[in-house]
Amino acid sequence: MPSFEAKDPNFRERVAASFQRQAVMHTLGIEVARLEPGEIELTMPYARPFTQQHGFVHAGIITTALDSACGYAAFSLMPADAEVLTVEFKTNLLAAAKGERFVFRGRVIKPGRTLTICDASAFAVGASSERLIATMTGTLMAVFDRAGVSG
Amino acid sequence: MPSFEAKDPNFRERVAASFQRQAVMHTLGIEVARLEPGEIELTMPYARPFTQQHGFVHAGIITTALDSACGYAAFSLMPADAEVLTVEFKTNLLAAAKGERFVFRGRVIKPGRTLTICDASAFAVGASSERLIATMTGTLMAVFDRAGVSG
Amino acid sequence: MPSFEAKDPNFRERVAASFQRQAVMHTLGIEVARLEPGEIELTMPYARPFTQQHGFVHAGIITTALDSACGYAAFSLMPADAEVLTVEFKTNLLAAAKGERFVFRGRVIKPGRTLTICDASAFAVGASSERLIATMTGTLMAVFDRAGVSG
Amino acid sequence: MPSFEAKDPNFRERVAASFQRQAVMHTLGIEVARLEPGEIELTMPYARPFTQQHGFVHAGIITTALDSACGYAAFSLMPADAEVLTVEFKTNLLAAAKGERFVFRGRVIKPGRTLTICDASAFAVGASSERLIATMTGTLMAVFDRAGVSG
Repeated sequence: MPSFEAKDPNFRERVAASFQRQAVMHTLGIEVARLEPGEIELTMPYARPFTQQHGFVHAGIITTALDSACGYAAFSLMPADAEVLTVEFKTNLLAAAKGERFVFRGRVIKPGRTLTICDASAFAVGASSERLIATMTGTLMAVFDRAGVSG
Repeated sequence: MPSFEAKDPNFRERVAASFQRQAVMHTLGIEVARLEPGEIELTMPYARPFTQQHGFVHAGIITTALDSACGYAAFSLMPADAEVLTVEFKTNLLAAAKGERFVFRGRVIKPGRTLTICDASAFAVGASSERLIATMTGTLMAVFDRAGVSG
Repeated sequence: MPSFEAKDPNFRERVAASFQRQAVMHTLGIEVARLEPGEIELTMPYARPFTQQHGFVHAGIITTALDSACGYAAFSLMPADAEVLTVEFKTNLLAAAKGERFVFRGRVIKPGRTLTICDASAFAVGASSERLIATMTGTLMAVFDRAGVSG
Repeated sequence: MPSFEAKDPNFRERVAASFQRQAVMHTLGIEVARLEPGEIELTMPYARPFTQQHGFVHAGIITTALDSACGYAAFSLMPADAEVLTVEFKTNLLAAAKGERFVFRGRVIKPGRTLTICDASAFAVGASSERLIATMTGTLMAVFDRAGVSG
């Protein structure tokens, strides 16, 4: 994969500040483990309140973290005055989200002035290995001078 | 749209029982408002802990409810001994999830022995109108004799 | 569905002119059967050169027509100086494309200044009925002052 | 990526034979350049009859080749008596399909008894470099004892 250069030298602060303002990240315990221009790694613990009928984390919650990985990977490359908005994503569920901890890796596939295309992968983390449980591809949009964009 | 016939006369009890076992549905306050063979309507209140940086409900949480609408629409047509598993879904986000209450309508497009294709729409409910905020298409799979499927 | 108003009163001529310039439409025999603001119907005959290993029309060719239905439904609502570009689409294949003739119906779900969201359905046409064989949801983008956009 | 082992030692012959029976592959000039278990590379020349209004290859034709790359990557890992059927795919269009020659690389992300998840990338090939123009993720299904599956 190509490595990207950030337009905004303060992209780390900008990502951290936006992340902090997302109540859902706190609620789900999602944290930024690593951030580079166009690449991000998030972690999330297992939490019983977010499970489906078999006690595994619900696909929609896994998707919430994957969308966040795509969104902030894209946001890291955007200019300082941009907001980021999710246009669409597709998630493929590959295995049950069984595990104590999850890792999500998102990266930019193609940055653009208006639209940025990303993908992300979700892994259940075991004692000595990671298991791929879901993948996402998504389209993110940079918006300017506009309040109230969706996340 | 064609109307479907349920293979399992007890599909209402079966959907209700599976829904009850999903902790995430309780946590998000998602409830079944209406259920017919191959069709379902869910409701969800606004809740601050599940919002993004602008105070609107996060796209991943909207997706959780949409996936649930697709999943239970499909499940309602499956035989009594089937479990339902989400294979994939795509969400298009059309507008910010701004509102006090949300409605999700899912329906089966094409039922099948193994795979069922569904779509679902999310609406923000206002005093006198509904506003379309997101759509999903998804593939659901019937699994038999298998513990621990994903949701 | 809501009915839309065309910004450009000459949308019919504009769609027809763009359609004429697409060599692939001629090659596949795709024609516009009906056009309203935000809605279109296309037809395509069966043709042996575009089939897969069982003699049915290939999913990618069905997708070509579905993409065209989404693209021109979106284009019909765009201003006179816009070009249309496909950002992404997802196709669900529901049944083999078995038949002598196919119909594709596309419509705008949500128009926008920059992005327009559409869906489309493909049907195999029989003597007395139509059979749904595939569905698409897609994102289309209006571009201005820019040569060489993708289709 | 993990490397996979083919269940059927004759997977090369089986892929080649199925490919030969697809009229659309001949029509579009698509050929297999490389095949390993779970991985494939296809090539396609530019051809004017398959272009959109700007003279570039139509997104649906690029999708036809991407679907073929996903389908045969999946098929290479299936048992000898399986047929392969496309359940769904999503294509992100990243750049105009401008070029004299195109390469498509597909690979299996997760094989399964019934469903196999793949991704594929399309590149326009220049004199000294490749340019990424589109990506796909798709779900493929193994079917047994069933005539007339879709491609």
